[in-house]
Amino acid sequence: MSKADGDEGGGGSSETAQQPEEKTPAEGLLSKLSAATIGPGWTKVSCPCCVSERVEPLVLVKLGEKVRPETKRWLIKVIGAPQKDGGAGLLAHPGEDASGDIIVVSVPRCTLLKATEELGLCKTYRSGDMEAFSYHDRDNFKDSDNMEVFLTLAERQYIVKYELDGLRAQRDLRIPGLSDSYTLHHRDNIWQKLVSAGVIVDSFPLHNPDQLKDLSEAWYSGNQLAQPLDAVNGYFGSSVAFYFSFLDFYTWSLLPPAILGLAITYFSGEVQKEMEESVSASPVTDVEEDSGPTVGGHMIQAVFSMLWSTVVMEMWKRRSSTLSYRWGTLHLAERFAEPRPGFHGDVGVNPVTGRMEPLFPEWQRDLRMALVSVPVVGLFLGLVLLGMLGFYWGEAQVQQLHTDWDSLLSQTLIYMPSVLHILYTNVLSTLYRTVAQSLTEYENHREQSAFENHLTAKILVFTFFNYFAVLFHIAFFKQDVPLLRKRLASLLIVTQLINQVTEVVIPFLVDRFISAPRRTESEDDPPEDKFRNQGTLPVFPGLFAEYIELLVQFGYLSLFSCVYPLTAVLLLINNLTEIRSDAYKICKLFRKPFCPPVANMGVWQIAFEVLSFVSVVSNCWLLLLSPWLQELCKGGGMNSTNVLLLAVLVEHVLILVKMVMAVLIPDEPDWIRKKREHIEYTSMQALREQKLHSEES
Amino acid sequence: MSKADGDEGGGGSSETAQQPEEKTPAEGLLSKLSAATIGPGWTKVSCPCCVSERVEPLVLVKLGEKVRPETKRWLIKVIGAPQKDGGAGLLAHPGEDASGDIIVVSVPRCTLLKATEELGLCKTYRSGDMEAFSYHDRDNFKDSDNMEVFLTLAERQYIVKYELDGLRAQRDLRIPGLSDSYTLHHRDNIWQKLVSAGVIVDSFPLHNPDQLKDLSEAWYSGNQLAQPLDAVNGYFGSSVAFYFSFLDFYTWSLLPPAILGLAITYFSGEVQKEMEESVSASPVTDVEEDSGPTVGGHMIQAVFSMLWSTVVMEMWKRRSSTLSYRWGTLHLAERFAEPRPGFHGDVGVNPVTGRMEPLFPEWQRDLRMALVSVPVVGLFLGLVLLGMLGFYWGEAQVQQLHTDWDSLLSQTLIYMPSVLHILYTNVLSTLYRTVAQSLTEYENHREQSAFENHLTAKILVFTFFNYFAVLFHIAFFKQDVPLLRKRLASLLIVTQLINQVTEVVIPFLVDRFISAPRRTESEDDPPEDKFRNQGTLPVFPGLFAEYIELLVQFGYLSLFSCVYPLTAVLLLINNLTEIRSDAYKICKLFRKPFCPPVANMGVWQIAFEVLSFVSVVSNCWLLLLSPWLQELCKGGGMNSTNVLLLAVLVEHVLILVKMVMAVLIPDEPDWIRKKREHIEYTSMQALREQKLHSEES
Repeated sequence: MSKADGDEGGGGSSETAQQPEEKTPAEGLLSKLSAATIGPGWTKVSCPCCVSERVEPLVLVKLGEKVRPETKRWLIKVIGAPQKDGGAGLLAHPGEDASGDIIVVSVPRCTLLKATEELGLCKTYRSGDMEAFSYHDRDNFKDSDNMEVFLTLAERQYIVKYELDGLRAQRDLRIPGLSDSYTLHHRDNIWQKLVSAGVIVDSFPLHNPDQLKDLSEAWYSGNQLAQPLDAVNGYFGSSVAFYFSFLDFYTWSLLPPAILGLAITYFSGEVQKEMEESVSASPVTDVEEDSGPTVGGHMIQAVFSMLWSTVVMEMWKRRSSTLSYRWGTLHLAERFAEPRPGFHGDVGVNPVTGRMEPLFPEWQRDLRMALVSVPVVGLFLGLVLLGMLGFYWGEAQVQQLHTDWDSLLSQTLIYMPSVLHILYTNVLSTLYRTVAQSLTEYENHREQSAFENHLTAKILVFTFFNYFAVLFHIAFFKQDVPLLRKRLASLLIVTQLINQVTEVVIPFLVDRFISAPRRTESEDDPPEDKFRNQGTLPVFPGLFAEYIELLVQFGYLSLFSCVYPLTAVLLLINNLTEIRSDAYKICKLFRKPFCPPVANMGVWQIAFEVLSFVSVVSNCWLLLLSPWLQELCKGGGMNSTNVLLLAVLVEHVLILVKMVMAVLIPDEPDWIRKKREHIEYTSMQALREQKLHSEES
Repeated sequence: MSKADGDEGGGGSSETAQQPEEKTPAEGLLSKLSAATIGPGWTKVSCPCCVSERVEPLVLVKLGEKVRPETKRWLIKVIGAPQKDGGAGLLAHPGEDASGDIIVVSVPRCTLLKATEELGLCKTYRSGDMEAFSYHDRDNFKDSDNMEVFLTLAERQYIVKYELDGLRAQRDLRIPGLSDSYTLHHRDNIWQKLVSAGVIVDSFPLHNPDQLKDLSEAWYSGNQLAQPLDAVNGYFGSSVAFYFSFLDFYTWSLLPPAILGLAITYFSGEVQKEMEESVSASPVTDVEEDSGPTVGGHMIQAVFSMLWSTVVMEMWKRRSSTLSYRWGTLHLAERFAEPRPGFHGDVGVNPVTGRMEPLFPEWQRDLRMALVSVPVVGLFLGLVLLGMLGFYWGEAQVQQLHTDWDSLLSQTLIYMPSVLHILYTNVLSTLYRTVAQSLTEYENHREQSAFENHLTAKILVFTFFNYFAVLFHIAFFKQDVPLLRKRLASLLIVTQLINQVTEVVIPFLVDRFISAPRRTESEDDPPEDKFRNQGTLPVFPGLFAEYIELLVQFGYLSLFSCVYPLTAVLLLINNLTEIRSDAYKICKLFRKPFCPPVANMGVWQIAFEVLSFVSVVSNCWLLLLSPWLQELCKGGGMNSTNVLLLAVLVEHVLILVKMVMAVLIPDEPDWIRKKREHIEYTSMQALREQKLHSEES
């Protein structure tokens, strides 16, 4: 991390230790803030330790165009006021002048350190180990005097968002410059109210151009094989870093199946040729050509991919826990933190922490999920199925029509079912996203991560169904292996291409030829304009699409790869470019996102593991459908019922083997387990000590 | 708990606060201990708070007959010395005189409280909640001045054992009166050395006659339906209490399947009669008689029992966590405690706790398990199979012989295979128990619970295989449902009867007519004789046999019950008597066992859950074998392959439903979760506070 980038970050803010001034009228306070440059003009810090030479602009808050200066002044005051007085304990800067439409926010040392403790982040202790950070004990943590080394940029920016989101009115209050309908009541969330009142249009973390330049050079500009994951974690935060770590891990783990796939394709080609030579000009050749790999390859590929998927997921869990230890997110305290902003309920005493906060009974949430969410999601899944059936029905009808009439009109009509189906699917999935969002809001989860996991799970089930319904239909109902193979190959190649184009090429072109000309930036621009320019970039759409792409890939590979052994090769090639294009995208084409610290991939982990078990069922089934077995049955070599029984037996044994493997491979390496147990032990010891001390004092 | 039973527990021990005397020669100390009664004569306590009016005799240590007085004196000194001087911090009494072969052990308050903290027991705090006990904060816990209320009898006795087992030599030392080959080295376990030297023959907790009388009245003497589980926990400890709680819970949960089984038997009888009437004198009747319940009953029973088993196990987990909270074992600290006595390794610094103790690398244990334990267990399972196959082969041979010769000799020979098989099985299982014990010793587990879980798992797999191999063989290979039904019915009735007889009737008779006459006890006997008499009872064989009996029952019910719907009824009747006979057995027929505090059933929980999933496979298979389906296939009503496919589909759906149910039913009730999170939160908070304090001091 470069520490020398202070020249544009702001001049020295010369505040000295001083009592908070929130009791003076806002107008009085503001006279000191109306400086024209981003240098001086920050709100004052309330404690001596936070006074620093320079203030780093972290987050830009964009205000509505019609916001009155008194509202802006009041907001700056709230942001700058100490936490014990109901403020956010941050530093605010009004931009060019008091009437401009931005507020630049930074954060002083004490607020950072207190929030680090509240979030439960682990940091390097004096002893060199990672330990849960404690504000009281701050001096024993490494670098706790230099915030730009102690906390990563992503963490500092997230803490700003955390404090702003957590602002709650301490008493009933009229917001200056707003109508009475926006009066704040006791414990109301101020930020949410201001957003709904249109005062705050947007808020986003600011890029640090120097760090970004270093990062992009180390990440995607050169020919490097490894990604700079620690730097990604520092700059973008752990959720982004976990995505890229998984992408990396998963891509390299594609090597064994890719090599196997190549070998099988090569040897089955050899075998086929030999067979053709030995039985030359026999009518079998035609059948063989379509049956793809030989049955031996089939089986090896299937069994290998079933066991491979479990090993990969278990190894990833171990890697994931190592990363989480390294990035200090092993011991997050989200459960004990304040509820997320959108959470509502009757105010009461939290039985766990003893704090006053909104409470919402668990059973009511369960009831809402069971009686509302589950049926609605089921309905949408039904609609997907209905659409698919309608498509098949329509296609059959049109085919019939075409053979009956054979006119130009009927030829045009042939494309109608596909077009209608695509339209239907798109409308449905757009609608579903909105519905899933409201359903999850309605479920009223206390923690942000619970909210996101439930939202992700909902969209995931639907998207997965949408993607795989057709393939499953072909595999299990039509039982048509050649069609499955063709469909899989075309999906693999076409969807990967489409994804790359829509994800990267289009945003790149838009950025280059439409947005960039409007964003002429020169070295001499005031920093406010540079900040404002970042706001013209589109909002980062989140990692959902990226993860679902990986999941669908993983699905193709583990569920159906035995019918098309080159799947892993194609995916490997795709992912090597994907890493770079994703990195370029997040660095250049979008606004920097806020990323909460996370300890793992959350619900995605489970999705991949579930898929890995479903793969056993589908692979065994596909083997059963393989032409060789079908031939054998027809030829009377084996009773078809016995073959089926054998397949069921093999399936059960493989599932058992996978479960045993999943249990036997520990989810975290031994040394991480010891570190975690050490943290647990010290906290238990501390509990006993503390009771003594609280007794004495 | 009766507190007025002090009159036989001992007179007032009139020690005042005094420094420990372990540095005076043992002979000097002993002069004060050689009183004739159990009243005075206890070793002295080392701190003023532990001085109490009376000392409760808790544990009897039986010495070898040839133990020299100086060895006994030395042992008493070690037991009585404070912990900081390498003693056990307990109270010892030499019985009648210094040359007698018993030592009676009790425990002072401070040792109890410190051990309570070390074990991680939760106790009622001032606020009324359960909290992890802290020695420093002892005054804020309820009843912490009265040990007989604060800790249960079982806990106090376990703590005595815990301290004795934990005795380690602080330096190299010759034990007085023993040969040089028994010299103690630094950190050697003293108790183990004395046992191997034959100095200590036995040690067992003493019964408290008054409490035992109260308990037995509330437990099995009357007609009460509910068991006094809290009193059982208090008197025998939580592992015994968990067994009886599970027995209780499981017995009541047998009601629904029992009612369903009765209904199905009744209605299928009706239907059968009607059918017989309508198609009277048809040749089908004969087949119908053997096919048992109709296919409808079959299916209802099967699906019901599959779902029932998951619901029962999930509900039990909830109940189990409630009990563990109530009994203060929710937060046991076994991982952080001293390793179990048999654990060995190179002395080093434990990375978790920072204490000096023997260490043994995890990977080495894993290696031993993978390369030694697993193959050996596999070998024994193979031997069971081999025995079974040999039995079938022998039976066929003998049958052949009998039909060929038909003589008296051949008729006798018919029983040979059965007899040989029973002999073989018995020899094998005896051998296996020894082997399993040594294997688990060799695996060198650090914690007692890990040791026991691994031992239990080994014996469990074998026993289960032994019990069910024949039934699985009949169901899956012979595919003979009527034979399975007959075998199941006979097993259910015969094994239950045999169990009841061997477990209760024989020990009762032995006790009544062989042991009791030798144990003539009168009110006037000195307490030493009463204590010594308890040693004549046989050692409690542990709960293994009891649990395996329940597991086998559960297996009959969930795996095969669809072929014999009355299973649940028979089990219900059996268990209602089983509760009483088990209670009688543990109270009267055996020595009181030491029971470590436990938080759940350990590995048994998993065994029951695994069985519940295996039941889906077996039930679907049995339904497939049902005569109705077979008829249908033969009649051509349905293709047999399609029926099989349908069965596989149903099986997968049911497994999915069970898994979803297991995930959706939370493992602990909401209020327990809150309490647990509260303990976690306070310990996290404490960690932060403590760092501050350790800083200051």
